[in-house]
Amino acid sequence: MSEPVKIVEKKPVPPGAIMLYGLPDVGLVGLIATSYIISELDLEEIAFVDSDLLPPVVVLHEGLPHAPLRIYGNNNFIAAISEMAVPAAALHPVMRKLIGWGETKEAKVTISIGGIPIKNRQDIKEPEVFGAATTKDLIEMLRGKGLKILKEGFIVGPQALAMRYSAERRLSAIALLAQSFYNYPDPEAAAIAIKTVAKITEQKIDVSKLLDKGEEIRLRARDIMRRTQQELTRMKKSQEYDIPLYV
Amino acid sequence: MSEPVKIVEKKPVPPGAIMLYGLPDVGLVGLIATSYIISELDLEEIAFVDSDLLPPVVVLHEGLPHAPLRIYGNNNFIAAISEMAVPAAALHPVMRKLIGWGETKEAKVTISIGGIPIKNRQDIKEPEVFGAATTKDLIEMLRGKGLKILKEGFIVGPQALAMRYSAERRLSAIALLAQSFYNYPDPEAAAIAIKTVAKITEQKIDVSKLLDKGEEIRLRARDIMRRTQQELTRMKKSQEYDIPLYV
Amino acid sequence: MSEPVKIVEKKPVPPGAIMLYGLPDVGLVGLIATSYIISELDLEEIAFVDSDLLPPVVVLHEGLPHAPLRIYGNNNFIAAISEMAVPAAALHPVMRKLIGWGETKEAKVTISIGGIPIKNRQDIKEPEVFGAATTKDLIEMLRGKGLKILKEGFIVGPQALAMRYSAERRLSAIALLAQSFYNYPDPEAAAIAIKTVAKITEQKIDVSKLLDKGEEIRLRARDIMRRTQQELTRMKKSQEYDIPLYV
Amino acid sequence: MSEPVKIVEKKPVPPGAIMLYGLPDVGLVGLIATSYIISELDLEEIAFVDSDLLPPVVVLHEGLPHAPLRIYGNNNFIAAISEMAVPAAALHPVMRKLIGWGETKEAKVTISIGGIPIKNRQDIKEPEVFGAATTKDLIEMLRGKGLKILKEGFIVGPQALAMRYSAERRLSAIALLAQSFYNYPDPEAAAIAIKTVAKITEQKIDVSKLLDKGEEIRLRARDIMRRTQQELTRMKKSQEYDIPLYV
Amino acid sequence: MSEPVKIVEKKPVPPGAIMLYGLPDVGLVGLIATSYIISELDLEEIAFVDSDLLPPVVVLHEGLPHAPLRIYGNNNFIAAISEMAVPAAALHPVMRKLIGWGETKEAKVTISIGGIPIKNRQDIKEPEVFGAATTKDLIEMLRGKGLKILKEGFIVGPQALAMRYSAERRLSAIALLAQSFYNYPDPEAAAIAIKTVAKITEQKIDVSKLLDKGEEIRLRARDIMRRTQQELTRMKKSQEYDIPLYV
Repeated sequence: MSEPVKIVEKKPVPPGAIMLYGLPDVGLVGLIATSYIISELDLEEIAFVDSDLLPPVVVLHEGLPHAPLRIYGNNNFIAAISEMAVPAAALHPVMRKLIGWGETKEAKVTISIGGIPIKNRQDIKEPEVFGAATTKDLIEMLRGKGLKILKEGFIVGPQALAMRYSAERRLSAIALLAQSFYNYPDPEAAAIAIKTVAKITEQKIDVSKLLDKGEEIRLRARDIMRRTQQELTRMKKSQEYDIPLYV
Repeated sequence: MSEPVKIVEKKPVPPGAIMLYGLPDVGLVGLIATSYIISELDLEEIAFVDSDLLPPVVVLHEGLPHAPLRIYGNNNFIAAISEMAVPAAALHPVMRKLIGWGETKEAKVTISIGGIPIKNRQDIKEPEVFGAATTKDLIEMLRGKGLKILKEGFIVGPQALAMRYSAERRLSAIALLAQSFYNYPDPEAAAIAIKTVAKITEQKIDVSKLLDKGEEIRLRARDIMRRTQQELTRMKKSQEYDIPLYV
Repeated sequence: MSEPVKIVEKKPVPPGAIMLYGLPDVGLVGLIATSYIISELDLEEIAFVDSDLLPPVVVLHEGLPHAPLRIYGNNNFIAAISEMAVPAAALHPVMRKLIGWGETKEAKVTISIGGIPIKNRQDIKEPEVFGAATTKDLIEMLRGKGLKILKEGFIVGPQALAMRYSAERRLSAIALLAQSFYNYPDPEAAAIAIKTVAKITEQKIDVSKLLDKGEEIRLRARDIMRRTQQELTRMKKSQEYDIPLYV
Repeated sequence: MSEPVKIVEKKPVPPGAIMLYGLPDVGLVGLIATSYIISELDLEEIAFVDSDLLPPVVVLHEGLPHAPLRIYGNNNFIAAISEMAVPAAALHPVMRKLIGWGETKEAKVTISIGGIPIKNRQDIKEPEVFGAATTKDLIEMLRGKGLKILKEGFIVGPQALAMRYSAERRLSAIALLAQSFYNYPDPEAAAIAIKTVAKITEQKIDVSKLLDKGEEIRLRARDIMRRTQQELTRMKKSQEYDIPLYV
Repeated sequence: MSEPVKIVEKKPVPPGAIMLYGLPDVGLVGLIATSYIISELDLEEIAFVDSDLLPPVVVLHEGLPHAPLRIYGNNNFIAAISEMAVPAAALHPVMRKLIGWGETKEAKVTISIGGIPIKNRQDIKEPEVFGAATTKDLIEMLRGKGLKILKEGFIVGPQALAMRYSAERRLSAIALLAQSFYNYPDPEAAAIAIKTVAKITEQKIDVSKLLDKGEEIRLRARDIMRRTQQELTRMKKSQEYDIPLYV
């Protein structure tokens, strides 16, 4: 294999869709939210990522093997998730490939979903979602939808590279960051993030089933949360608590 | 050597055979089962794997050197085994090469044999075998033969990549996973796996000799079991106990 | 990405400007000074550095993502800063790229700003700035402006490579080293360095705001100071205390 | 240097000779035996191995520098020895190069000499030598000369690769393994190995001087023995004690 | 930079000169001796070595930056020194480049100067210098000049590679090894080495200033000695104490 990362398409991929990213990160907010959207919108598996940089793992579903990092879609939405923590050493090439692939599919806008850790999460009933984006127009759009903007700070990990590579290619990209636990799967934060996605994309998505299954998801997500944490440390994720010196 | 892994053919390799894989893994189920099948069906050594990624080892048999990772066959079956734990760093290129080679030999179907660890193995008299496969037709075929399907879960290691690379090339591949010990060679689990192979391939294979020699095999396999264990840790094999979040 | 480091230009880059470098180093003198100059001269962001050798980080400013290592400019000045410690393993290719890029932009002169650690820094009211340069004419010019010359010693890190690669390409380059703390952000040292830049470039720059905000900057810079320190150790920065044997 | 390992010829190398290998291994049996043969047959230095994978070392002899890994020969014998433990990371390319080079020189047969550790070595007066070979004819020839054959087992290290690469190229190769100490230089085992070489090649070699100088050699070889041991561990030499599962 | 190591020439390099090497090694004998010769013969800086394998360091002299590994010369002598310990990982390519470069400059002979550690150095008033060389004629010449020859033993580090690469290209090369301290800069040993260089090259060099400044040099060289020691360990320099088994 000459390319370090490749995307294998299993079905035709519709052009001009909205792309969602939900890779394992703080509180698994992005992964839980995106998985739920895939299920609610009944998106079909259309492609997956193959790379020697990823561990030798497959996920079985009804006895059929699936790559842990895979892409779903219908005519309006394309969504990428990973059921396996992406090793820090694989993050740059994987994200570059995904964003580049999205460009060839003429994605309308890229929305990456993640968490932003806050220390007193347990005291907060309704976590807030903050937005960031690659253009001023998108920032204004987010503000128009009632979203708070994350004005200053560092983003580290999958969302950072989604933003960086999108900006480099002058693509429209949004990052949504919901206040969340750092080390515990946070379905409530995911539910708030989904509501924000729904508002932005004007796609109705009912989060009631997610909230009902909160406890079950927390349990099922415990293992991937533990593995994700190790990679976050390698990515120096703790830098997100840093104050930038920005001019 | 420009290629990192190469397969050296010593005899002509028949096209259209059934390919069996028995690489060192949990309980050495695959290795014990496949070795026994090679012996029972009197398969001949036809090829071996050479790579700088593998340690500097040869196995002597009647004073003649053999590669630890080698391939046997007759007109109906081709079987690959390794008498040496495959280093985690070599697993991707070795498996990709093997599956690619199987494709050029027009293998009818690939059956990789392995174990699935269960905690109370010592309390189980007759371990069960679970199946997974790259197509729905194969799943149905396995169900038709009375096999249970491993519906949800992770597979990690040689079998994971056998499935992944087969699926990618749209090849027919089956994974058989027999309940087994994690760290002890498990000839009984291997015997059950062989019976399942016999049922699927409609090839009569008598396992009585294997069961008779159980204690002897457990002893002879102790060393390779110990070395295999170290590589399983590197492959994050423990992830097989994880619950996937699958949408 | 075939190149390990690339510079992505967002706006046209004026030729013939004076280039300033302020990468994280001892006391963050260069970073604080250069950031302040960017702000005072109202330089615009014109380019940034992208590389897989840098961690997966973006800095948000008003909700828009920025590369941590980026370049500002107007018709007279170009200034490069990094809000992230540059990993030791990335320093050679990053600096080579920056200096080579400066050459293609026909930079008039390169001024890299840094600190030189002294042990009794807290006892010194007005730190001194020492100069070094790639040509005797520049040394004379610096002397003419009243600057002391750092006659003997080692320079280690970003400034060392800025000097080395400039000398190799026969480019005019100056290093300014202000006496500073090793491990604490030192805005006072930065202020003195800025005054020296102002004198050399005959560009009026008022440092009063920097001195007023001293305490705030020290706080904001604490995090990047901590991360910078780790990389300084990897670069064997302690060698700067060594006495050279020079013939 | 584009090739990782190269062989530099200092004198013309005769075609069709018998090749002996004595690289540092268990008990230094091969090195001591081959060095002694070189001396007794008065072989001349004809080539040496150069590689960045080998440490920066030369051996002086009468004030002249020699590569530690070098090749001697006359019209009938070519012999390769190393006075330096070959680093585990260099073993594959070094052995592949040596065997490939031997093929271009049309070596009649390759005899690699080594030790096979036994625990009660000190209780054995006359160690035994076991043989292995790449063809059945050679095995029969060895048996005809009264040699025991090592029927089952692992060989790890230089001899393993000598056998593997010879078999791959369908070259005639023999491995001789004398019972020896693992960690102590064993000139007595070397003497027995030499007698076996003499028998096989029908070349008279008197071992009396070797036996007389036993104590002196043990002392002189102590240093290289210690360094060899570290590399044996890296090659997982302990695997030679393993029982293979061979079908 | 495609080449891992390159030599940048600042002035025309005269052909046919005598080349001296004084890289940091045991007791810094070579570095101190060669630096002193450069100063006494008033050699001019003519070239330097650039490589990403070397740490990010420049040495200032009168405020001008110099590469730590640089080359001086006049019409009769060329001398290479390094004011920085050469990392073990850079030694092979750096020495290969230097020797190859010397060949293109048609160096008449290469003299590398170093120390050979002896345990009771403090009890020795006048250390001895031993010689080694790439040809028998040179050995005879050294003997004719009254030098003792280092008949048997290992040389490890810069001098080993200088000898090895010179021998490989059939170039005339001499190694001078003065008895010295292992870990303390040894100007007295350097003075004796210089006298030997003077005798061999028939170039008058007065060492009185070196002996007068002994204490000062010991102090100035303390830092580079400490850093050199770490690299010597990585090169397995301790092997020089080993007794070779030489046939």
